[in-house]
Amino acid sequence: MQRRGVQAIVAFGATTLADPDLTYVVGGQLARGGIYFKRAGSSPLLLVSNLDLGSARKAGGVRRIQTFSQWGIEKLAAKYGGRDKALPRLIANVLKKERVKRKVVLAGRNDLASGTDLVGRLKRLGVKVIGEQSPTILEVARETKTQHEMDELRHVGRKTSSVVNAVFETLRNLKRKRGHLQLGKERATVGSVKRLISVKLAEEGVTAPEGTIFAIGPSGADPHNSGIPSQEIKEGKLIVFDIFPQAESGYWCDLTRTFVVGRADAKSRRLYDTVFEAQSECLGMLRQGTTGEEAMLKACEVIERRGYRTIREIFQGKAKSIPSGFNHSLGHGVGLTIGERPYLGFLSKEPLKKRQVVTVEPGIYFPGYGGVRIEDTVAITSRGVDPLAHVEKELELA
Amino acid sequence: MQRRGVQAIVAFGATTLADPDLTYVVGGQLARGGIYFKRAGSSPLLLVSNLDLGSARKAGGVRRIQTFSQWGIEKLAAKYGGRDKALPRLIANVLKKERVKRKVVLAGRNDLASGTDLVGRLKRLGVKVIGEQSPTILEVARETKTQHEMDELRHVGRKTSSVVNAVFETLRNLKRKRGHLQLGKERATVGSVKRLISVKLAEEGVTAPEGTIFAIGPSGADPHNSGIPSQEIKEGKLIVFDIFPQAESGYWCDLTRTFVVGRADAKSRRLYDTVFEAQSECLGMLRQGTTGEEAMLKACEVIERRGYRTIREIFQGKAKSIPSGFNHSLGHGVGLTIGERPYLGFLSKEPLKKRQVVTVEPGIYFPGYGGVRIEDTVAITSRGVDPLAHVEKELELA
Repeated sequence: MQRRGVQAIVAFGATTLADPDLTYVVGGQLARGGIYFKRAGSSPLLLVSNLDLGSARKAGGVRRIQTFSQWGIEKLAAKYGGRDKALPRLIANVLKKERVKRKVVLAGRNDLASGTDLVGRLKRLGVKVIGEQSPTILEVARETKTQHEMDELRHVGRKTSSVVNAVFETLRNLKRKRGHLQLGKERATVGSVKRLISVKLAEEGVTAPEGTIFAIGPSGADPHNSGIPSQEIKEGKLIVFDIFPQAESGYWCDLTRTFVVGRADAKSRRLYDTVFEAQSECLGMLRQGTTGEEAMLKACEVIERRGYRTIREIFQGKAKSIPSGFNHSLGHGVGLTIGERPYLGFLSKEPLKKRQVVTVEPGIYFPGYGGVRIEDTVAITSRGVDPLAHVEKELELA
Repeated sequence: MQRRGVQAIVAFGATTLADPDLTYVVGGQLARGGIYFKRAGSSPLLLVSNLDLGSARKAGGVRRIQTFSQWGIEKLAAKYGGRDKALPRLIANVLKKERVKRKVVLAGRNDLASGTDLVGRLKRLGVKVIGEQSPTILEVARETKTQHEMDELRHVGRKTSSVVNAVFETLRNLKRKRGHLQLGKERATVGSVKRLISVKLAEEGVTAPEGTIFAIGPSGADPHNSGIPSQEIKEGKLIVFDIFPQAESGYWCDLTRTFVVGRADAKSRRLYDTVFEAQSECLGMLRQGTTGEEAMLKACEVIERRGYRTIREIFQGKAKSIPSGFNHSLGHGVGLTIGERPYLGFLSKEPLKKRQVVTVEPGIYFPGYGGVRIEDTVAITSRGVDPLAHVEKELELA
């Protein structure tokens, strides 16, 4: 904060749901949201509704917790014509009491129309609100995880492992009936497997707000295709299974396995072995101090050595696009969002730090045929990486 | 828009997830979000990534769909140092092309720190950005549902009915073992019933991002208590079951039933009958032209006539709080959020309109004993109300 010349951050919202910055500073979920005040050099203050006092204490991110009522929200609402209209007064009053006179950043995911109005009103009340370009102070803070965050990430990692292992167990035991694979009493299709995945997620108490990719054959080569529900599960076809569950805490996990039910042909095997090798090499070299660029280069080297094309050709100016091959970056941070800093790619020149959590996910795709991607979410440590979910990597589910 | 002196709305975000305004204008979900431009008197324009073109067409809210690439996002990003930094230029370019010269409102749920920065940059590029106090133009638009929205709300209503009916079927058939009710092989507890609810939600393809209330006995009197997982299901105890699922479309349903497993005692019966009567009377009188205040008054009259206290005493200045009774308002709007305009309470003096969708949910609570709340989500029509979910109202599940 001080390096950026910011004296205080005020993060707020009507709920912590789908608001990573507010969840981060509060340390957990508040059904009715709250207002968080952090003055550089002082301990933070959190204002919540009377009903959320218990949740705020349990969340544990802030020790100094007070209620809107203690700050006279009801009187302000009566005086200015509603709680919305009272909000700028309330914020200005707290900032005054906390002796904040210099630059203030507002944070939290809010409607921009009323957010812009609020900024104007605060400025007229003498608050020096400034904006921030991304990465914001809170985005940078969220890059490195606290012990509490690591615990939550491990928790959702375990849940993810349970779901994937249960799905694998079912897929291994599919019965065959008149030439078709059966899932229970119905035909095994992408749709029926996805329903099974949803049920397993629910049983583990996690959700997948952005869906799950379960894509067979050619669909697996298209990053936008999450799987065609009517498509049957056929033996020997490559299946990309990319699952990204979120726990109640707000933390995510991201894991991909690629496999075939039954036996794989030589082309699939060669693709798989290449991606497996690329991922293993990257997992083996990543640690505190290595850069995303180094790992990305390593993945491209392994894949190119086996005769496949990679996105490196584009960065080198040798090609404008590649028709097939490894065409995306190696990974991204995971935490209260499923795609955040740090990123692992050719532009990632900053050394990685302990307690950053990233995906490592090389892939090779052949349009019209299929794709292979293998992805783990891992924590960076001083000695290497520590995977947050543990699921076997086998091409053939048999 | 014109009445408010706004020439254009620009709604945008990195995803439509948990962004009701952006989902509303787009007409559906976009994994990577987009930028929506609406100039008063012209047809809207939507910019999306190449990958989201199909989703944008399917969403159907906007006919004029173009890509970021068509507007040169890559060149702007190269010139200004990243996509984030290119965003104000891109927006300003589109507004110029669309001949927008007067006031512009930015909408969509976005981080306020970078949102404030964006507003400043747009202003420096000559865009006349203004803020709006709630209710914003889009909040007001969302109050009345389109046919497409009604279809989506009915869809999630049907899913909600299926989940609740399936849970009731299970609860009716609980077995007894050594004096304890059993759910399958385990003891029937709030936790095991909640897992069952999660599985049924998953089977129906809906989620409950804000959880589910399943609160027995005294917990049911505390609006903040969603149920204590370890608590056993006991016959004859009041259970408040409040479920609020959301479909993939983003639309919600909200439904509460209160019941006992087995037989109810006279006190529970009297409470139940009172709430049932209050809700029936309100459902019977609500239609286009009635006000939320009238219905709220009616609910209080019925409840007071039976000798219980209501929040009306507070509005009349006769009491500062009530220790037990009907202590909240009658209902709220439902759509792309689970709590929005219009509200049904003492301050709701505007006549209701056709195609508004609201909850009707009177309740009576006795701390230390329990509560009864009965809630339906209904559409307002010219002749009355049309419930969006259909679930029996019976005190005794037997």
